[in-house]
Amino acid sequence: MEQRAGYRQLDTERVRRLCEALFGAYGFSENESRIISDVLLRADLYGIESHGVQRLVRYNEEITSGQVDVKAKLDIVHETPISACIEANKVMGQLSGVQAMELAVSKAKASGCGMVTVRNSNHYGIARYYTEIAAAQDLIGISTTNTEAICVPTFGAEAMTGTNALALAMPAEPFIFSYDASTTVVPRGTLEVFRKNSTPLPDNWALDQNGKPCNDAAIVIDSIIAKTGGGIAPLGGLGTIHGGHKGYGLSVIVDLFSAVLSGGLTSNHVNRKPGHTGICHYFMAIDYGIFGDKKEIKTNMSKFLQELRDSKKTEDHDRIYTHGEKEFEIMAKRINGEIPVNEKTLEEMKNIALKLGVDYGNEAF
Amino acid sequence: MEQRAGYRQLDTERVRRLCEALFGAYGFSENESRIISDVLLRADLYGIESHGVQRLVRYNEEITSGQVDVKAKLDIVHETPISACIEANKVMGQLSGVQAMELAVSKAKASGCGMVTVRNSNHYGIARYYTEIAAAQDLIGISTTNTEAICVPTFGAEAMTGTNALALAMPAEPFIFSYDASTTVVPRGTLEVFRKNSTPLPDNWALDQNGKPCNDAAIVIDSIIAKTGGGIAPLGGLGTIHGGHKGYGLSVIVDLFSAVLSGGLTSNHVNRKPGHTGICHYFMAIDYGIFGDKKEIKTNMSKFLQELRDSKKTEDHDRIYTHGEKEFEIMAKRINGEIPVNEKTLEEMKNIALKLGVDYGNEAF
Repeated sequence: MEQRAGYRQLDTERVRRLCEALFGAYGFSENESRIISDVLLRADLYGIESHGVQRLVRYNEEITSGQVDVKAKLDIVHETPISACIEANKVMGQLSGVQAMELAVSKAKASGCGMVTVRNSNHYGIARYYTEIAAAQDLIGISTTNTEAICVPTFGAEAMTGTNALALAMPAEPFIFSYDASTTVVPRGTLEVFRKNSTPLPDNWALDQNGKPCNDAAIVIDSIIAKTGGGIAPLGGLGTIHGGHKGYGLSVIVDLFSAVLSGGLTSNHVNRKPGHTGICHYFMAIDYGIFGDKKEIKTNMSKFLQELRDSKKTEDHDRIYTHGEKEFEIMAKRINGEIPVNEKTLEEMKNIALKLGVDYGNEAF
Repeated sequence: MEQRAGYRQLDTERVRRLCEALFGAYGFSENESRIISDVLLRADLYGIESHGVQRLVRYNEEITSGQVDVKAKLDIVHETPISACIEANKVMGQLSGVQAMELAVSKAKASGCGMVTVRNSNHYGIARYYTEIAAAQDLIGISTTNTEAICVPTFGAEAMTGTNALALAMPAEPFIFSYDASTTVVPRGTLEVFRKNSTPLPDNWALDQNGKPCNDAAIVIDSIIAKTGGGIAPLGGLGTIHGGHKGYGLSVIVDLFSAVLSGGLTSNHVNRKPGHTGICHYFMAIDYGIFGDKKEIKTNMSKFLQELRDSKKTEDHDRIYTHGEKEFEIMAKRINGEIPVNEKTLEEMKNIALKLGVDYGNEAF
């Protein structure tokens, strides 16, 4: 059994029931509460605590401040057999995410591929939740999302693009390839861990509000929040020597697919208005049978991934992972058991439950 | 006028005519020679010398060794209204590249998007040449290509993926967004510059044949060529601290689209057989009008790119570039004038001309 200081091991299904009760109390339908809770729980099952139930505090703020509209429904504003553009009307991100990817999947099944852009949504949790919906249907799944600006362009001193995650899932045996990563050197959550531990940031990661390289996580986070300049480097770091211009370009590509193609707000305009975040997403499903025999293609992918895992390691490592693998292993241990929940998170959940009149004691623990 | 030591300024059109004459002498048709030369010259016009006429030596080797089949034609082995898989039969990479992207463009015009995979091709030069064919038709263009393995997976000690470039072009005013970058921290060409100048490599870039971090470009290049282990780090560097696992994942995604979906060879199998490289590519064109009004979308893209360029700079930089911009500026200066050609390259071209019986003096200089 896992056990970490400051954490409690909680029965996964009981945490799920509490989440569902909380979202139900906000006014979401039973099905909507089930979907939102499943996206959060999946993150905890994968060991991605930053996107798990600890997000409840942030979601609570967004729901109560009106950034999320509990009663919002999606409008399809443009559609072709292979595409759609959705106006999400400030819906909870998980709800637009699942519906948009399901639409992309149905288009891929009928026409070979489906691409759906979503504007005016909200934070949707882990991007791979959606790409893995496509992979479970034996399709390639792709998703991108923008966020509020946290990332400085190469030679820039002001955050202009978001965490801007890019995710892709491709079926394979014995488990799928599932890539999900920000296009920044690290996401904001990593800086928060450094701040919490009072550890200096590695060089090449971030700039302060004056555009100077900065190793103090607190200064960087504060200036991102205050939008006074500074921010996190793109993947590849500051400047061009380690390829920071490549990460910068990838973050622009994520904003292109998520925001520009949907007619929504690019990262530098997200989250500036009270009551409105404007976050945008992109979803794509591809039936890879449009290129040849699916069984052969899947076998080739499985073989390639196995060759990567089997290739020569450095002296200090005995495993090479393929993307998604680590999280599938963690989930296998937790799925019928317990997830670790930070005691502070638990306290926050309790407070939210009290405020919403949800029976915290009976509902969960 | 530009002038660098060891370089000669040569009339662009005279260099083009010499290239066309050389490729004609190998047995390519007039149209084929025009296409191959245009891809090479475009790189020199953009200031990307590594992919310009200096590649003639390598192409000469590949053509004379039989890795490139001068008489090869493409076979479409699988096709749907939005997709195709092409067996390239060892054709020159530039020829499969242009034909495959033109097929993707025609599918995008008819159905909204076109995706074409190509197997058994050869080095195709700069990836953006092809994505910009789509952008010139007011479409989004995407291309990826694998290469022989040069890049080590995270925690790995053996090169398994290639330079694995990813390119994307999107129409915008006053000039398009054109991203084209390897998924490695640097391409092999950069290591060759460090070797030539006897400069130590920055930390975090490469491993030697024993999987130890290595700052000696010569050692890294030799072990990549000998396939004895070692190689270049993925974008994000060695290990995970700066996000190397993200670059590693992106390089796998490039191999997925280029090689796995085409039924071709992944990078770790490319270039191992004499007379056969097996390089694979992917091409995609998207009519972005499938998401909404094209004029509005293009205007939004132009506005976002301008906001990036106008955003706050660091003290030591007075410009933020968007991708493609630098090269378009260089081309504007060179297009009706001269390109710099390394004297060694010129000597090599002369030798090839002599061997092929092409009149070097009259044809060019």
